[in-house]
Amino acid sequence: MTTNSSVQVSVLGLGAMGSALADALVKAGYATTVWNRSPEKADDLVAQGAEAAATAGDAVRASGLVITCLLDHASVHKVLDPLSRDLAGRTLINVTTTSPAESRELAAWAAHAGVTYLDGGIMAVPQMIGQPGSSLLYSGSADAFHQYKPLLDLWGTSTYFGTDAGLASLYDLALLAGMYVMFAGFMHGAAMVAPAGVTAGEFAALATPWLTAMTGAFQGFAAVIDGGDYAVEGQQSLHFSNLSSLLAASSDQGISTDVVAMVQRLIQRQIDAGHGEEGFARIIESIKQPG
Amino acid sequence: MTTNSSVQVSVLGLGAMGSALADALVKAGYATTVWNRSPEKADDLVAQGAEAAATAGDAVRASGLVITCLLDHASVHKVLDPLSRDLAGRTLINVTTTSPAESRELAAWAAHAGVTYLDGGIMAVPQMIGQPGSSLLYSGSADAFHQYKPLLDLWGTSTYFGTDAGLASLYDLALLAGMYVMFAGFMHGAAMVAPAGVTAGEFAALATPWLTAMTGAFQGFAAVIDGGDYAVEGQQSLHFSNLSSLLAASSDQGISTDVVAMVQRLIQRQIDAGHGEEGFARIIESIKQPG
Repeated sequence: MTTNSSVQVSVLGLGAMGSALADALVKAGYATTVWNRSPEKADDLVAQGAEAAATAGDAVRASGLVITCLLDHASVHKVLDPLSRDLAGRTLINVTTTSPAESRELAAWAAHAGVTYLDGGIMAVPQMIGQPGSSLLYSGSADAFHQYKPLLDLWGTSTYFGTDAGLASLYDLALLAGMYVMFAGFMHGAAMVAPAGVTAGEFAALATPWLTAMTGAFQGFAAVIDGGDYAVEGQQSLHFSNLSSLLAASSDQGISTDVVAMVQRLIQRQIDAGHGEEGFARIIESIKQPG
Repeated sequence: MTTNSSVQVSVLGLGAMGSALADALVKAGYATTVWNRSPEKADDLVAQGAEAAATAGDAVRASGLVITCLLDHASVHKVLDPLSRDLAGRTLINVTTTSPAESRELAAWAAHAGVTYLDGGIMAVPQMIGQPGSSLLYSGSADAFHQYKPLLDLWGTSTYFGTDAGLASLYDLALLAGMYVMFAGFMHGAAMVAPAGVTAGEFAALATPWLTAMTGAFQGFAAVIDGGDYAVEGQQSLHFSNLSSLLAASSDQGISTDVVAMVQRLIQRQIDAGHGEEGFARIIESIKQPG
């Protein structure tokens, strides 16, 4: 039987997220080596049982599994480029925030250096690591994912998307896009009711269960999109979703109509193209095909 | 003790929603009179025990409580204007979709006619009436709301906002705004991953729990907004929320950047105004103050 303490793992980068990841490993009994450019960031982890490496090279050479959680794509190259020979034969799991293209570039770099590469995207803030609701997305080496899954599962729910190393970043960014746009919608609603003396807190008390319930519509939209026929019956038509009353009420409240007008343009483009009798899911075509 | 059958209630307008509302009343044992411009819409309800009125006037005169669920504001006036004398002394609960200004206009009309007026907004589709997740918003007469709350609760969770009859419509539209914008965000995410061969259903399987979890941020944003200080500590700053990587990845995928660019403009306006170190909740100022 393999115990956690027989697995050597090094974590490079001890910002808030890297520290949270390393902390979970130390607490689970993994033999954890840590390194950070500013070494004092390692103090708390060392107090809990981690080994501090004096250099990034020492950290890489200490373990078969190297985890990078650095500032950005350029930082990863700056730290790892001089260490490609040391990394050869080891596994690199890079959870630094990168674009899909950058993740693919790192995967190619790793392949050239003889390094097994798994790319990760973290759908959580540092305080959520190891807690319910923390979700981590992976793509790249399937072997690395399966070998280290028990370790990865310490951080949150682990999902693997495939060997294309860019997939995890792509999912990550797509989910973040959904989040930021939802936040803008919440803010628009709170701004609409504010002139009537309604606090944002009062609005949030209704908007939280309401939008949670409305996420239930996603699978229905997806079924229409994946089915390839936006005209299937039982849907609310685009004509019905005309948002002019929302725009008028926003103007009446003296607030900007920009947020809702964005959605209205997506709808209007499809109506103008003759698809007004089709379902709401059709607005994805206004996004898939830039005007 | 008052039994449901001793309460006389009339429902005017038997579209899908009006029929669902009347059906719940009949099933709960209320003495229900129904009327619709096309009378055959009443057949199913009559088979279940409702009375069909030959005219809207007959329906109004049959009950102390009159519920209107018509096409729009103009339809309400068209049906009720000739009946203002018959309505005097009765209670009118109007759940027709109207703007805040239209609801207030109807409340003034009702006050002039000696009618007790309660305005309602329905946050549900007809199939959800009486089911968990159905939510109805009310404003106008507090007496009417409290007197008929047991009846209103048959349809879903009933929330009363105050005597300003426009409040329910305003909340209704603000929540719908949040929903439509969230849907656009989901569609953007699904469009981003589609070129990588990810189906909308696969994306929805991740986006549904993710966006549900992220609604948990609303109360935190609201606390900052209501606190009146966007610079309180412990928040992610606007600089950190720069969406240029999201915009670049969307372009790389060959899709429109319009949806995310809308959010980026809200952020950029606040950064340009010198608030980049303040929290994300500050973007509400870009909505409250049209540019």
